[in-house]
Amino acid sequence: MSRFLNVIPVAEAVATVIRISPEPVKEMIPVESSVGRILAAAVTADTDIPGFDRSVVDGYAVRAADTAGAGDAIPALLHCTGRIAMGRQDAKISVGPGTCAYIPTGGVLPAGADAIVMVEYTEDASDTVLVKKAASHGENVLLRDEDFKKGKTVFFAGRQITPQDAGVLAACGCASVPVAKKPIVGIISTGNELVPVTMIPGPGQVRDANASMIAAYLTEYGCVPRLYGIILDEREAFEAILTRALPECDVVLLSGGSSKDERDMTAAVIAAMGEVLVHGIAIAPGKPTIIGRIAEKPVFGLPGHPASAFVVLIAIVRPLLDRMLGLSRSIQRTQRATIAVNIPSQRGREEYVRVRLENGVATPLFGKSGLLNTLIRSDGLTRIPAGAEGLEQGSVVEVILW
Amino acid sequence: MSRFLNVIPVAEAVATVIRISPEPVKEMIPVESSVGRILAAAVTADTDIPGFDRSVVDGYAVRAADTAGAGDAIPALLHCTGRIAMGRQDAKISVGPGTCAYIPTGGVLPAGADAIVMVEYTEDASDTVLVKKAASHGENVLLRDEDFKKGKTVFFAGRQITPQDAGVLAACGCASVPVAKKPIVGIISTGNELVPVTMIPGPGQVRDANASMIAAYLTEYGCVPRLYGIILDEREAFEAILTRALPECDVVLLSGGSSKDERDMTAAVIAAMGEVLVHGIAIAPGKPTIIGRIAEKPVFGLPGHPASAFVVLIAIVRPLLDRMLGLSRSIQRTQRATIAVNIPSQRGREEYVRVRLENGVATPLFGKSGLLNTLIRSDGLTRIPAGAEGLEQGSVVEVILW
Repeated sequence: MSRFLNVIPVAEAVATVIRISPEPVKEMIPVESSVGRILAAAVTADTDIPGFDRSVVDGYAVRAADTAGAGDAIPALLHCTGRIAMGRQDAKISVGPGTCAYIPTGGVLPAGADAIVMVEYTEDASDTVLVKKAASHGENVLLRDEDFKKGKTVFFAGRQITPQDAGVLAACGCASVPVAKKPIVGIISTGNELVPVTMIPGPGQVRDANASMIAAYLTEYGCVPRLYGIILDEREAFEAILTRALPECDVVLLSGGSSKDERDMTAAVIAAMGEVLVHGIAIAPGKPTIIGRIAEKPVFGLPGHPASAFVVLIAIVRPLLDRMLGLSRSIQRTQRATIAVNIPSQRGREEYVRVRLENGVATPLFGKSGLLNTLIRSDGLTRIPAGAEGLEQGSVVEVILW
Repeated sequence: MSRFLNVIPVAEAVATVIRISPEPVKEMIPVESSVGRILAAAVTADTDIPGFDRSVVDGYAVRAADTAGAGDAIPALLHCTGRIAMGRQDAKISVGPGTCAYIPTGGVLPAGADAIVMVEYTEDASDTVLVKKAASHGENVLLRDEDFKKGKTVFFAGRQITPQDAGVLAACGCASVPVAKKPIVGIISTGNELVPVTMIPGPGQVRDANASMIAAYLTEYGCVPRLYGIILDEREAFEAILTRALPECDVVLLSGGSSKDERDMTAAVIAAMGEVLVHGIAIAPGKPTIIGRIAEKPVFGLPGHPASAFVVLIAIVRPLLDRMLGLSRSIQRTQRATIAVNIPSQRGREEYVRVRLENGVATPLFGKSGLLNTLIRSDGLTRIPAGAEGLEQGSVVEVILW
């Protein structure tokens, strides 16, 4: 292994990631548990919605012409021919000149009627109804197929399902929804300095914070994390755990390896079992990232610092997840903000700076690398492109929210 | 039942909801699956983090004074006394005047050293190391407890756990995390016009879209929805399903009931089995909402239109969930935006208008009530207070995102 990394631009690393990304896999799940999942196919309405001319209020179905000029002082007097029941079309009830019918919200507009007067503007007088407001043609009626037309595409593939989408999918008859299967992502923690969360670290030891952080990120992003625990920095241990994890996962992340020796071990094992495609990216933090492939499966070596690992998850691993999920656009949330102060940066590498957001203003949180507390005190990251020497105060940027 | 509702202001309805809200219940869950959950207790660091003075780079531990004036032309020559191993404190290695020791990222700073020179600024020459850059005292060292101090509160209760939080919780020794138990919310669909999603609606019938939409919203908001299917508008059916659902749930939502008869039935059954606290809220859409309580459990009658039901979920039910989850601030996402056009509103009721967001500008989506398509074409809701006659073009509002 050479002493210095042969770093490549972020765009090139992302292109590599996309090139080795497995295709999305489709599965069917019940609509009521589909929220947050990614549609794997387009969905069309299997019926007209609504399937009939429908009242949107409680009131009286009328012929609009019969109510012309009606008001509080001179109400229109209409003979009530019956009450529309919910859930069925009542052929016996129709509305002719001078008549009306009671209709509940959601009821089928009876033959002959072309508008509905809200009950608030009417008064009952046995079989006669006093209508105190003129109705216009079509008023308070939702027409057949006005919402969605049978056979028309309602959603395209690649969309993340919102609660309202779930409602519309149900309305379209999609009891089972085609979604992208959640990628299974293995997390292997490496490093002789790591101890499990349940232990009190001794001198020189640290708890494995990255595994929980990465698992949480993956869960939030719609994947299934699979934790393989901590292994020692020994070649046999690396090979054994990878041999176990690879058949069980779609992607494997090796987390830890903060020292150069550990990173070299990670790269050497990936090279021996498959191929190393990238070792070193022009990104800060996160330079010593490794991208490889074993048995057609992407394998990443993430940097050991939690803050660096997190940036690499967002900037480098996320495009892989986006692709495996078949997303039409990334679901990483962002927000525009104005930079509060000048942020210098080194040209030639893409830099990610933690920022706090307040009323649309982003203030950078400077601090030593390797600190966890700036991760939880910040609201997101702002990116400084490799070609820039920094961001100027007052410029507007996109903040990647967390 | 009276023909007109006795509507109360939104604030009063919310106060009622909060008054009848069950207390949060705490449970312990593994840190690696804690993302998105709400902390139910404060968390303190059980050790100093880091627990020792730690290198943040690969390099040589030195006495800063020994490198004063060092540069490419005149490097400092230091005798290397050994290599620090990861994961333990090596008492045999110390750094005295004129000496240094190799230290990996994350290694323990050896006795006598006070700074670290990155390997990039050094050159090996057997036992001698050429240091080509002066180091300042403390450089590249993360001091013991610099990140978190033992016994100090790291998180307060009521916070939603982010991926980074999960990492910090792990670092603090929190293998089991105290979180609010997910409220179990029953969903009962009512209405003679409703058919299951699997059926093709006949004349006058509609599919039950609300149950899937509400279940999805509750899931997204950190609750467990429990679906009880569709019941007919008959008193016995209402009573039987409520008798079954109440012991199994923390809250019950009756969804549907778009017609006045159905709403009256809902209110009558709640009154018979418990008490109706609110029937009618000065909110649009969503006026005919019912809030009640049976056997100490909150029971809601939601309006039948999906769009109205959704507004009531956000404006009226959400404060209950916030409280049951013990949230210190709502997790409903919002974003500031400028209103694109004047939006008129009726004074005396709080109005929720669907808007599209583009580059910080919110454009209202007008349309007939009862349409589903405006729900999926919009990005969120903007609220017009009851005291206002509308929103003026150019004014800045908070948009409730979905």
